[in-house]
Amino acid sequence: MSRYQTLVPRPVQARPAGGTFELTPQTPLVAAPGAEQAADVVRLLLAPLRLPLRPASAGDGLAVRLDPGIGHPEGYRIRVDETGIQLYASTLDGIRHATQTLRQLLPDAAWRTVPPPGARWPVECGEVIDAPALAWRGGMIDVARHFFSKHTILRYLDLFAMHRLNRLHLHLTDDQGWRIGSRRYPRLAEVASHRPHTQAGWFRDNPETDGTPHGGYYTLDDLAEIAAYAAERGITVVPEIDLPGHASALLAAYPQLGSGRHTVRIGWGISTSVVKPVPATVRFLADLIEELTDAVPGRYVHLGGDECPLHDCWGGDEEVARYQRELGLTGHVELFGHFMRELAGVLTAHGRRMVVWDEAFVGGGLLADSVVAAWRGDGVSRRAAAAGYDVVRCPVFPTYFDYAQSDDPDEPLSIGGPITLEDVAGFAPVPESWTEQERAHVLGAQFQAWSEYIPDPAHLDYMVFPRACAFAEVAWTGRPAADDFVTRLAAHLSRLDAAGCRYRPLSGPLPWQTGGTGHRRRVGGTPIAVVREHLERLAERADIPPDMATMA
Amino acid sequence: MSRYQTLVPRPVQARPAGGTFELTPQTPLVAAPGAEQAADVVRLLLAPLRLPLRPASAGDGLAVRLDPGIGHPEGYRIRVDETGIQLYASTLDGIRHATQTLRQLLPDAAWRTVPPPGARWPVECGEVIDAPALAWRGGMIDVARHFFSKHTILRYLDLFAMHRLNRLHLHLTDDQGWRIGSRRYPRLAEVASHRPHTQAGWFRDNPETDGTPHGGYYTLDDLAEIAAYAAERGITVVPEIDLPGHASALLAAYPQLGSGRHTVRIGWGISTSVVKPVPATVRFLADLIEELTDAVPGRYVHLGGDECPLHDCWGGDEEVARYQRELGLTGHVELFGHFMRELAGVLTAHGRRMVVWDEAFVGGGLLADSVVAAWRGDGVSRRAAAAGYDVVRCPVFPTYFDYAQSDDPDEPLSIGGPITLEDVAGFAPVPESWTEQERAHVLGAQFQAWSEYIPDPAHLDYMVFPRACAFAEVAWTGRPAADDFVTRLAAHLSRLDAAGCRYRPLSGPLPWQTGGTGHRRRVGGTPIAVVREHLERLAERADIPPDMATMA
Repeated sequence: MSRYQTLVPRPVQARPAGGTFELTPQTPLVAAPGAEQAADVVRLLLAPLRLPLRPASAGDGLAVRLDPGIGHPEGYRIRVDETGIQLYASTLDGIRHATQTLRQLLPDAAWRTVPPPGARWPVECGEVIDAPALAWRGGMIDVARHFFSKHTILRYLDLFAMHRLNRLHLHLTDDQGWRIGSRRYPRLAEVASHRPHTQAGWFRDNPETDGTPHGGYYTLDDLAEIAAYAAERGITVVPEIDLPGHASALLAAYPQLGSGRHTVRIGWGISTSVVKPVPATVRFLADLIEELTDAVPGRYVHLGGDECPLHDCWGGDEEVARYQRELGLTGHVELFGHFMRELAGVLTAHGRRMVVWDEAFVGGGLLADSVVAAWRGDGVSRRAAAAGYDVVRCPVFPTYFDYAQSDDPDEPLSIGGPITLEDVAGFAPVPESWTEQERAHVLGAQFQAWSEYIPDPAHLDYMVFPRACAFAEVAWTGRPAADDFVTRLAAHLSRLDAAGCRYRPLSGPLPWQTGGTGHRRRVGGTPIAVVREHLERLAERADIPPDMATMA
Repeated sequence: MSRYQTLVPRPVQARPAGGTFELTPQTPLVAAPGAEQAADVVRLLLAPLRLPLRPASAGDGLAVRLDPGIGHPEGYRIRVDETGIQLYASTLDGIRHATQTLRQLLPDAAWRTVPPPGARWPVECGEVIDAPALAWRGGMIDVARHFFSKHTILRYLDLFAMHRLNRLHLHLTDDQGWRIGSRRYPRLAEVASHRPHTQAGWFRDNPETDGTPHGGYYTLDDLAEIAAYAAERGITVVPEIDLPGHASALLAAYPQLGSGRHTVRIGWGISTSVVKPVPATVRFLADLIEELTDAVPGRYVHLGGDECPLHDCWGGDEEVARYQRELGLTGHVELFGHFMRELAGVLTAHGRRMVVWDEAFVGGGLLADSVVAAWRGDGVSRRAAAAGYDVVRCPVFPTYFDYAQSDDPDEPLSIGGPITLEDVAGFAPVPESWTEQERAHVLGAQFQAWSEYIPDPAHLDYMVFPRACAFAEVAWTGRPAADDFVTRLAAHLSRLDAAGCRYRPLSGPLPWQTGGTGHRRRVGGTPIAVVREHLERLAERADIPPDMATMA
């Protein structure tokens, strides 16, 4: 099988021709005038090959050209013949994609950090013409429920770039931990960043704990490094501070932002820790947002808005009631909308766009440029798109990768299951039944790696890959994965082996990836039933109605 | 404080002069004739600065020269004045050390993977003249008791290079797991690489288990990558197959190499799984050694030899008894010596030197070029050196980093404790009381990170750093760390922060680094008493007498 038939995600066109060109230490890197920066990108991304790729002004070799004729800003073209390789794109992002695809055309060892002794880098002659269908091709990693080190996040940025994913959404705060080390508010690092132990089993089971403290946070310098490393790979980091709910850790450190006493949670589920939506809270959060946007220069900041039991938390609070009356608002949902708009205003002042979970759209009153991350099914996605909001499609089914990957009783503990590789491959991010205008508002899609049941990086790899390979194809092409996906994937997994990714084999978990009887023990519970019940319970506690129609 | 006064390990001479030179994108890299490869080394190691450092044939800038006048093969000299930086060494290893020291002279951000936006790279003018006292400056990571991913090992190679450590000893096999994926013997990956759960508490406590499967292994390609990545940083990987004891995992996969039934162990301590020292075993092991030496090209292979209850395992076996008679040997210890010599012969045929734990020296009959890793105190080290063997000093006290770092009740579960930072800093690897000839046989020293109680990379960082900083200074200088060590270390920890190393703070564990009540819960037990008792029990079961005199 030609390597042109093993590319993941699948390019628009990829066809082998006869013959081979071999990259060698003598191959010059030829940058067309004005493409010097593009040559730097190629050099950076091919650095593991350890080829000098020194610049040359003319001749055969590896030639890079920024060509405005490549219409799509992320589009690219690769031509390989026996005299050399040409990469064309109209932007550096296009050159990045071209380079990643070229790396897939090389032997698998191209995905190691150092080439094996005597490695050779032949490339089959042929052509690739490609461009993505969707602008937002993302994945979310929940670093709040379990903290993942800076090095794990950097490794994921490499894996994202390999799959031409261009948004890394970091869920940085939640009830169980706050992962941003603020300079102005040191108690976030001192208090909010850790918990004394962690619930050991499934969230509905008796709350046994593991007895082991868990914690960690990124300094602002760490976040700046992550963002810069991402930017070099064409990836935008979307940091999330989840507000006003999921705030136990924040309120444990700064109780004056809420009512009552709070601790960093050790168990899973929805808490009643919601910050008060009053001006003092907004001022505090504006300080945090300023620190965060200074460190992370991307265009988007996610501010949560999900799963708030507003009545439970604000109902009995006199200060909240007074402020609501002052504003002339009639209910907690309106007050919630006001609060999110105020924070959106802070972001606008920093030149950013707010991203929110879909409750904040349903709640009403979102600024027009806010982006809706629609997790509760197709219906709410469509309503947001119809209302003119840009939508990121991230429905629980099939983009929540905290669900098991099969019905196999050996699968490790997860929130429910399964959401299979095939389910992900079959996802249609831009439904054909929608109007043209609604479809035009689908900015893209992203998968979610919620980490309640993902305690370490090996298990993160297991839960995310290879589903993320299927997801990347869906996001890149804007439609379900092509019929030959599983064939291409089988070859692609060797690239993941070389990259050191501990994915779930297609045949099922390796012995040490199974559940065992301990903290990863398996649970029953049908997946969709779990989601449905979760949303029903939420509906009872908040007046932001979920959208149930399309969950099953 | 001048950065010249914050270097770890401490160079022979380091003195600031007035003024500053700034590395900028315009700085040319000037390689003296013949030093092109040295320039490549500098470019690789300074890659995180993202300075182009393009080659230039003359002029000021960053100049690299291979100068035979620098006597010591790992010695180097750095001169910084306002016109540029000169690095001199007689070998590439010397240039590597010079580059690492230069990186310590730069702002801490030089240890990040990508520079912060607007980063500048000023270097204070001054001079460093330096060379190591010891040739073997190592650390052992036990990847058998807990498996650490390839990415963690690569990160440790960066940390080793930063501290001018040049040997990474990988303890690849033990009773609880076999981490080498053999092509010829697939059951090593299928069976020996994993266990169904793991003892949760201290090794003498009731054997509760965590219920979670644990496993993993490196493919031969992974090991080749690790070795190549190490070589680029001047580090030799010393792979260990621990023989003939500590063989439960091997025997679970290939029971024909031993007697009786064996399983991959879930608990800690010394097992009675010892391979039979017969020709069929040697042939099997020779195949494995061939695969291993093909993948890992360094000069040394460690073959264990420690903690074998020979009488228990060989005493009742007729085949062993017959073979012993055939050889005309009088006891199990002689047979053990014969077996280790046979394996040493296999290594010699592959151009390698055998390294062994000191039992194999005490057992007798070692080939003259074998290297003795002397873990059981000063006495046995000295006897091996006096007998003319090259010795690597690795006594339990103070080079075993699986011991707690303080008496603080918050310290996490460990085998005992404490072995403090000060204990490590006070280590004299080449005792002054030894004769000149004995001292000349001290090849070097290494620390040991046994991982029974180190379940994950964050905890590995905690246990290894900053003790490894003190160890690196001892190994580099050949004597206890200089008086100003703690002052220098305080500044050096900021470099570790930038590098993403989650070390133990000097003030004690962070809340999430403490023991809690779970699998990391603390234990009592005095450290040295534990070692002594361990050795006494071993002495009862084997006839390789340990050396007790200097343990306390």
